[in-house]
Amino acid sequence: MAEIVECVPNFSEGRRKEVVDEIAKSIASVSGVRVLDAEMDPDHNRSVITFIGDRAGVAEAAFQGARTAVARIDMNGHRGAHPRVGALDVLPFVPILGVTMDDCVALARSVGKRIADELQVPVYLYEAAATRPDRRALPNLRRGEYEGLKVAIEKDPDRKPDFGPSRLHPTAGACIVGARPVLIAWNVNLGTKDVAIAKRIAKAIRESDGGLPAVRAKGFELADRGLVQVSMNMTDYQRTSLVQVFEAIRSLAAKEGVEIIESEIIGLVPLDAILAGATQYFKLARFHREQILETRLWD
Amino acid sequence: MAEIVECVPNFSEGRRKEVVDEIAKSIASVSGVRVLDAEMDPDHNRSVITFIGDRAGVAEAAFQGARTAVARIDMNGHRGAHPRVGALDVLPFVPILGVTMDDCVALARSVGKRIADELQVPVYLYEAAATRPDRRALPNLRRGEYEGLKVAIEKDPDRKPDFGPSRLHPTAGACIVGARPVLIAWNVNLGTKDVAIAKRIAKAIRESDGGLPAVRAKGFELADRGLVQVSMNMTDYQRTSLVQVFEAIRSLAAKEGVEIIESEIIGLVPLDAILAGATQYFKLARFHREQILETRLWD
Repeated sequence: MAEIVECVPNFSEGRRKEVVDEIAKSIASVSGVRVLDAEMDPDHNRSVITFIGDRAGVAEAAFQGARTAVARIDMNGHRGAHPRVGALDVLPFVPILGVTMDDCVALARSVGKRIADELQVPVYLYEAAATRPDRRALPNLRRGEYEGLKVAIEKDPDRKPDFGPSRLHPTAGACIVGARPVLIAWNVNLGTKDVAIAKRIAKAIRESDGGLPAVRAKGFELADRGLVQVSMNMTDYQRTSLVQVFEAIRSLAAKEGVEIIESEIIGLVPLDAILAGATQYFKLARFHREQILETRLWD
Repeated sequence: MAEIVECVPNFSEGRRKEVVDEIAKSIASVSGVRVLDAEMDPDHNRSVITFIGDRAGVAEAAFQGARTAVARIDMNGHRGAHPRVGALDVLPFVPILGVTMDDCVALARSVGKRIADELQVPVYLYEAAATRPDRRALPNLRRGEYEGLKVAIEKDPDRKPDFGPSRLHPTAGACIVGARPVLIAWNVNLGTKDVAIAKRIAKAIRESDGGLPAVRAKGFELADRGLVQVSMNMTDYQRTSLVQVFEAIRSLAAKEGVEIIESEIIGLVPLDAILAGATQYFKLARFHREQILETRLWD
């Protein structure tokens, strides 16, 4: 049985390409691990590397990435638009195939402990790996950012890390390690130039405004195409499926007299999330993923 | 890059389970080859074994299956409803992933030659591997069946095999080897008890009555469910897609005032064939199969 864990570490370096390359190289050097993507954002001064592998491979690669980041990134003097607390700022493990969320929680805790023990970086556990309800959400853990946490970690017992010393690493700060469902970035484009419609629909469907669970959404104008866009992050497609969201948008748009023109998956998506559309379209009964010939390669 | 060839040999034995098991075992004994299915039909006195692997593995497994069938099946005295010419009656190679139809033609020809050379069984090449246009279709090659071919192969120069001797193997007869697209068995159920509607729609869409290329279709009654069924074999989904057929059935049914209730894939289906439904449903633009996380296991 093949297994895939996805790992999507965020590093506080988005300007020195040679440093990001070096981190990616230390991750890719682990046998069986495949780096799928590396994105640098100079404004945020931050980069995101996406890689996959089995549990053992991903654990080792995540640690090697952490080690390189700790050696090469100095948070003193780090400036950027995105909130952050350390060189390896966030390290989420994501179950994709043949592993459970609990497996990824175990992975987060063991890699987190190793980062604390071997690199002397304090580690906080978040989302599914959190040890306290108030530590599930990232913003709670990032309060005060690097500069604020430097003081708070030593003075405030409430900010004691889950692993490692109660002081920041002198250059690498702290690290937030966790487990979460796969994130799907998905845009739905509507056949109108009226951005207010996209904004209204986004507001109606997003969780933060009382809409659908695990959906983040914003409305944008695509001026050059004469369309508007509902741009989404689906943070748990098993709670709210792409089909549910698509039907919700279709119905809200229809009430505005507008049609869905197209949708676009940005980056990666798990098979089941996309397959649900085929099941819906073909009205498939009794269909199992194992009927897809290519899945037999994963047995 | 992973590669998958599917192989679906038909053997002239559908009653002695121990013989079919022995054939399946000789196929499965080849490293890297996976037997997905083995079906015995006592009325046809015939069995179909489905297996996958890379080119080298499938070539070896196909030959081992042929060797066992030639050793264990005697066509003298074989009776059954299905037309046949030999112990290993038909041996098609099917490209699934990372291999082309031309690769499968090459495979069919090299395995066919080996069966002729080492087992002294005359071999005819069919479909994409055929050496003459009139040998593409199976029924042409099966003319007269085992009993008729016994005489014709020796007397009629037109029936000379592509490989091996111009006489049948004394017990195993002849063998038809080829390459073809993957076959998808698919049923679409309609919300009516009137089987005439399913029969009319089947007639309208099937190739043999001037309908869609590479579609075979029949209409049936599902009396216990109060529905009727358009039962199809899609013989080349890249020529006529499942979406095209689904839309055709939907539109023909609508004209009869009937709706599609559900559809069902019988057995195996390639990812791309089913993914087309998701692309259609979500109106996906710029979507590539490589965006599906699990496909990264095949790189």
